[in-house]
Amino acid sequence: MRTTIKDIANHTGLSVTTISMVLNNKADSIPESTKEKVFKAVKELNYRPNQMAVGLVKRQSKTIGLILSDVSNSFFAMIAKAIEDGCHEHGWNLILCNTNNHHDREVAYIQALIDKSVDGIILCMARENTKKRLSETISILNENHIPFVMLDRFSPQMDCGAVIVNHELGGYLAGKYLLDMGHRRIGCITGPNDLADSNDRTKGFEKALKEYSMKLDPSLMYEGDYDIDGGEKGTEYLMKKGVTAIFAYNDLTAYGVYRYAGRIGKKIPDDFSVIGYDDVTFSEIITPPLTTIRQPVYDMGIEAVRQVIKGIQQGDGKYERIEFDPEIVIRFSVKQN
Amino acid sequence: MRTTIKDIANHTGLSVTTISMVLNNKADSIPESTKEKVFKAVKELNYRPNQMAVGLVKRQSKTIGLILSDVSNSFFAMIAKAIEDGCHEHGWNLILCNTNNHHDREVAYIQALIDKSVDGIILCMARENTKKRLSETISILNENHIPFVMLDRFSPQMDCGAVIVNHELGGYLAGKYLLDMGHRRIGCITGPNDLADSNDRTKGFEKALKEYSMKLDPSLMYEGDYDIDGGEKGTEYLMKKGVTAIFAYNDLTAYGVYRYAGRIGKKIPDDFSVIGYDDVTFSEIITPPLTTIRQPVYDMGIEAVRQVIKGIQQGDGKYERIEFDPEIVIRFSVKQN
Repeated sequence: MRTTIKDIANHTGLSVTTISMVLNNKADSIPESTKEKVFKAVKELNYRPNQMAVGLVKRQSKTIGLILSDVSNSFFAMIAKAIEDGCHEHGWNLILCNTNNHHDREVAYIQALIDKSVDGIILCMARENTKKRLSETISILNENHIPFVMLDRFSPQMDCGAVIVNHELGGYLAGKYLLDMGHRRIGCITGPNDLADSNDRTKGFEKALKEYSMKLDPSLMYEGDYDIDGGEKGTEYLMKKGVTAIFAYNDLTAYGVYRYAGRIGKKIPDDFSVIGYDDVTFSEIITPPLTTIRQPVYDMGIEAVRQVIKGIQQGDGKYERIEFDPEIVIRFSVKQN
Repeated sequence: MRTTIKDIANHTGLSVTTISMVLNNKADSIPESTKEKVFKAVKELNYRPNQMAVGLVKRQSKTIGLILSDVSNSFFAMIAKAIEDGCHEHGWNLILCNTNNHHDREVAYIQALIDKSVDGIILCMARENTKKRLSETISILNENHIPFVMLDRFSPQMDCGAVIVNHELGGYLAGKYLLDMGHRRIGCITGPNDLADSNDRTKGFEKALKEYSMKLDPSLMYEGDYDIDGGEKGTEYLMKKGVTAIFAYNDLTAYGVYRYAGRIGKKIPDDFSVIGYDDVTFSEIITPPLTTIRQPVYDMGIEAVRQVIKGIQQGDGKYERIEFDPEIVIRFSVKQN
């Protein structure tokens, strides 16, 4: 247990008020000998002023909280690293909480971060958030007047700052590339249907189809869960539909496609093509290296830090929405059809 | 900014003392109408008692801090997820800080966590820690009387609780398997030479060699950095030495071996064999799936939570050291020589 000012009082026989005055440099009327007694005890008992108590006065703890949805997903782990770097550069501390995509933990952690007096929060919301649940999360932040910025996942109806990616463009780039490579029967393994970022990819994909005078075939859309398992199941489903290419809505899903292909002895891209989305580290290492849509993860993290610090320092409630453009990274998982 | 008790005072015209008495249920002598006034203001201004201030009295915040060395390394990301699950199960919150393997950030974050009144800390120390630096870290924890447990990386001289893996056994299992598969010219890409967990793997590897009446050849030991880059450079070096197999001291390093092989057009395991260490998610998905030494990451995380909570609740300074045994997971990256 940490030493409190009360322990100093017990140790020295002085009152808490006297000690507090000495430590806060408001002790002009207090004899030097008493001051020395206090400083000696502070050193002996290894007392450090409670930042939270200091925060009550200064109202700033120079700490940003980051709510992550799943730290074991490389995309979010890379974001966390970028945000940590950004905070460090500005002289701020970062504390992270991982919700494992549960809304109830998201709410609990936001409360905990507020209780620990973070000055601002960067929120990567839980996958299981519906619009109603997200509203609840946002209300808690607003009621507590905590500057925050949403990162990656976002709902356009929400009245808040955000750092996002133009996923419609991402979906378009993926679809157009597969079409340009001669694929006409393309299956998609999407994210959860109630997430805007997944639906935006679909919109973009549809736009690319339209340029080829084609329509979206709902029977080739498999709802995944942005994870490896969903990728495997989706591939099993889409193989039966005779697709020649799969658009996996994130790289984890694409790894599931690879895993299923490996299991049934199919070769990518000889037997069918795959394009991913995110461009996390392993996509370059996997065999064959994955063609994918790159999100500028690092820049997004840095921008989120910049925005939340601006929100904390200006405190005027004004917010920005910064949208990054994704780009295609062509490797070896798609072949000409 | 959060509402403080002072704001309630300004709003109601009552004194801080009165409000505090009402909120702390010590207001027998205070009229009901005053109490109601306070509760109404609390609701209107959305005041929540400051957990830190409450902690000053109760001295427990039900929060555990986790110092991670590199959240973007899947091994640590998996550990973080396990610890989060363990904490959640016990009704505790977890806050994470990521040091990016820098000792100075490690020290700063431990201070920050103590300032935020975490009750205990789980420490995955920074890779750049020398013994002297680690001593400094441990001193800060001890001087502040914070129960803590070291996870994964550890120095046997330190007087503290730890959850570790028998890396000597791990090194032995890797070496023995490669030897059993007929390899005699085996290169190692180690971790940093000043880390005990790397040296322990080497000890185990040496033991396996001895069973085959062989000696460690220092020219086949390449010092890596537990990352992909080190794996690539080490492979370039060891290829020139004509090895038939490489023991990569973690899976990230093994991915570097794969990447280098891909770059120079060599096939694993046809051209040379590789064994990894950790068994993170991607090792099963990569082509060919990686034969590796599995650390029981999830169990380690859960055990660290159990130990640190025990330390917090008993507060007797007694500690345990729990050592887990690793096991070999045979996949397809090693062929008979």
